[in-house]
Amino acid sequence: MNRDLLACRPHPSKKISDAIAGDPTIVNLTVGEPGYGPPAVVLDGVARRLGVRTEDPAPSYDRYTHSRGLPALRQAIAGYYHRRYGLEVDPDAEVLVTNGGAGALWLTVFTLTNPGDEVVIPDPCYMLFEPIVRSLGRRPVRIATRAERRFRLDPDDFAAQLTDRTRLLMINSPENPTGTVYDRETLEALYGLVAERGIHLMHDEVFDSLLFEGQHLPARLLEPETRHTVMVNSFSKRFGMTGWRLGWMLAAPDVVEAATKALTFQCLACGTLVQEGAAAGLADTSTDPLVARHCEELQAKSLRFVEKLTAIDGFDLPAGPPRGGFYAFADVRRLYRRLVDRGEAPGPESEVVARYLLQHAKVGVVPGNGFGDAGEGFVRISYAAPEAHLDEAVTRLRAMRETLGA
Amino acid sequence: MNRDLLACRPHPSKKISDAIAGDPTIVNLTVGEPGYGPPAVVLDGVARRLGVRTEDPAPSYDRYTHSRGLPALRQAIAGYYHRRYGLEVDPDAEVLVTNGGAGALWLTVFTLTNPGDEVVIPDPCYMLFEPIVRSLGRRPVRIATRAERRFRLDPDDFAAQLTDRTRLLMINSPENPTGTVYDRETLEALYGLVAERGIHLMHDEVFDSLLFEGQHLPARLLEPETRHTVMVNSFSKRFGMTGWRLGWMLAAPDVVEAATKALTFQCLACGTLVQEGAAAGLADTSTDPLVARHCEELQAKSLRFVEKLTAIDGFDLPAGPPRGGFYAFADVRRLYRRLVDRGEAPGPESEVVARYLLQHAKVGVVPGNGFGDAGEGFVRISYAAPEAHLDEAVTRLRAMRETLGA
Repeated sequence: MNRDLLACRPHPSKKISDAIAGDPTIVNLTVGEPGYGPPAVVLDGVARRLGVRTEDPAPSYDRYTHSRGLPALRQAIAGYYHRRYGLEVDPDAEVLVTNGGAGALWLTVFTLTNPGDEVVIPDPCYMLFEPIVRSLGRRPVRIATRAERRFRLDPDDFAAQLTDRTRLLMINSPENPTGTVYDRETLEALYGLVAERGIHLMHDEVFDSLLFEGQHLPARLLEPETRHTVMVNSFSKRFGMTGWRLGWMLAAPDVVEAATKALTFQCLACGTLVQEGAAAGLADTSTDPLVARHCEELQAKSLRFVEKLTAIDGFDLPAGPPRGGFYAFADVRRLYRRLVDRGEAPGPESEVVARYLLQHAKVGVVPGNGFGDAGEGFVRISYAAPEAHLDEAVTRLRAMRETLGA
Repeated sequence: MNRDLLACRPHPSKKISDAIAGDPTIVNLTVGEPGYGPPAVVLDGVARRLGVRTEDPAPSYDRYTHSRGLPALRQAIAGYYHRRYGLEVDPDAEVLVTNGGAGALWLTVFTLTNPGDEVVIPDPCYMLFEPIVRSLGRRPVRIATRAERRFRLDPDDFAAQLTDRTRLLMINSPENPTGTVYDRETLEALYGLVAERGIHLMHDEVFDSLLFEGQHLPARLLEPETRHTVMVNSFSKRFGMTGWRLGWMLAAPDVVEAATKALTFQCLACGTLVQEGAAAGLADTSTDPLVARHCEELQAKSLRFVEKLTAIDGFDLPAGPPRGGFYAFADVRRLYRRLVDRGEAPGPESEVVARYLLQHAKVGVVPGNGFGDAGEGFVRISYAAPEAHLDEAVTRLRAMRETLGA
């Protein structure tokens, strides 16, 4: 774990505040918090954004919550793992509420590594993994995956890259950008290597509610108690609240304790307002069928879109259709060669194609090399857009392809 | 600035998204965002915490906002500096919305320094400064301040500690825990040294609305355009919304650009919900007299409390009464000696006294050594508590002192 972080001692006021928490007769003059809440105009502004009426705003006195997150929310998170997988999760010791899934990713890297340590990341993979590692002075070790293996990291390739400095393997399943899902066999083999070394496997499962077939398999299910896995999740996709920035980490108590310390230094705690809503939603099982329906709708959209897309010459899905999430990862190398044949200036395949689609078909997609070198030759296309946008995009792409000739 | 951070290249999708932003005819399939908003039970949960009625929740489709923060909020922040100080602040280039003032502190240190760099911090000072610096592998250089100089950092002492590795001076004014306020002369001298070296002065001004006399002086006022100063502020005290975690950084465009990158890696952006409320509140000048009234009430409470406190033998305020903020920083060394005379086991003065007050007067205060070694012998006492609590505390402290004899 992070030596600099572990070396930060608990503040001497910790003993005092612990004592105060256990004795209601104490007059607490330790914390300075205002005796007033937000002005009505502030409450109105929030309510407007929230979409509720504000005839009767009552004064709100939200105060700092526990750095680990509202107890009700941590209980709802533990309950979620129990209800879905039968897992026993300790809401007080194993759960940390974070500023979105991204917040949990960052804390995982910062907490589990020291400068110079190696962090293994499949290539391609979610775009934030590598810059988080790099910006902290840790060393990303990218391992190319292959469309023929559905872009899943090959355990043999992982084993070959393990060194004395390897501390962490980060995976995302269901995966952005490739739409792949790790199967049990691969996950078990990767976990086995990690456990044998006493290092950590971080499983970013933010698309767990958007899996198109079968049951989502969190890496945490592979061990009887939380030891070598760190689960990262988010409310963004599940509850359609991307802009609210709320997620969580599930890890061993010592990891959560150190990560909490780091979170305290960064922002003291996450905001209470959205935590309250997320707790209500996650604890209420009536949201489960709603989430399932959103997933079915997305899958239907994905199937329709992918069928039309691959009917256009030059958009290939060698790994098959997406297994979950928002994205199709299309191999556009044949299209690239056609473009160059027709006089387009050569360059990085992903970028040449993405730029061409933008300029000539007026369709915006993301160059695949933005997810790692092995994403070169691919583009990431979101099918989360409204159906009409997807249809319009297909029409434009088809017309664009026709102008290039057979 | 942070070399690891600067070395992180912009994502190749940046060019694409810039082009999309300028052309509404493009079908945007770059970003994956759900086509649904939060379930009603989530909206209800937030509204309940907010204190508004929820008869008619409309679906909310909050999406990721700009990493720098909602444009309306950044404009309100720029407007705030203009209205209070006549400063011209560029809301697009010089402002970053952060997860509370703490978020801005963290980003300042991370952005402006590299591992091993020195960061100067007065002693005592706000408790987060040193662990932020330490946990990032930077070196805190604490400089003792003296009650006789009202706990303001002496520019000569600062000059004597400058080295080739010094990158940043962090101050807090009005200050937690001492209640001191930096005067123009001291601030100018410190700024002069920083500017001469081409390094940075970070001024944490989160108590700017709780100053008891005169006009608050942000370090930013000392330079014609933002170069060597970083201002850190927060909505917590101004609008009584500590639990909502929203603040900002005002710095030179290159610093804001790098800090934005770091924020993106940490959490993509701050949550939209509270930003909307803060923007409404800060832009609305009707909140100004409300904020001023809260300050007057706090000052009256401070004066009454401090008069009663210092009438008790053993609670001294050698630096005079607090000039702003929530805290009295009381010298309790005479009380400590009396306790030891009466048989209390010796130890760190601050901790022995704080523990004694907790156990024998049932009053919770924070040991002063938690704010730096130079805080030894002091305790921090919050007078932000309700008046009745303050009166009860004084009664108990007085009774406790009487049992110790003359």
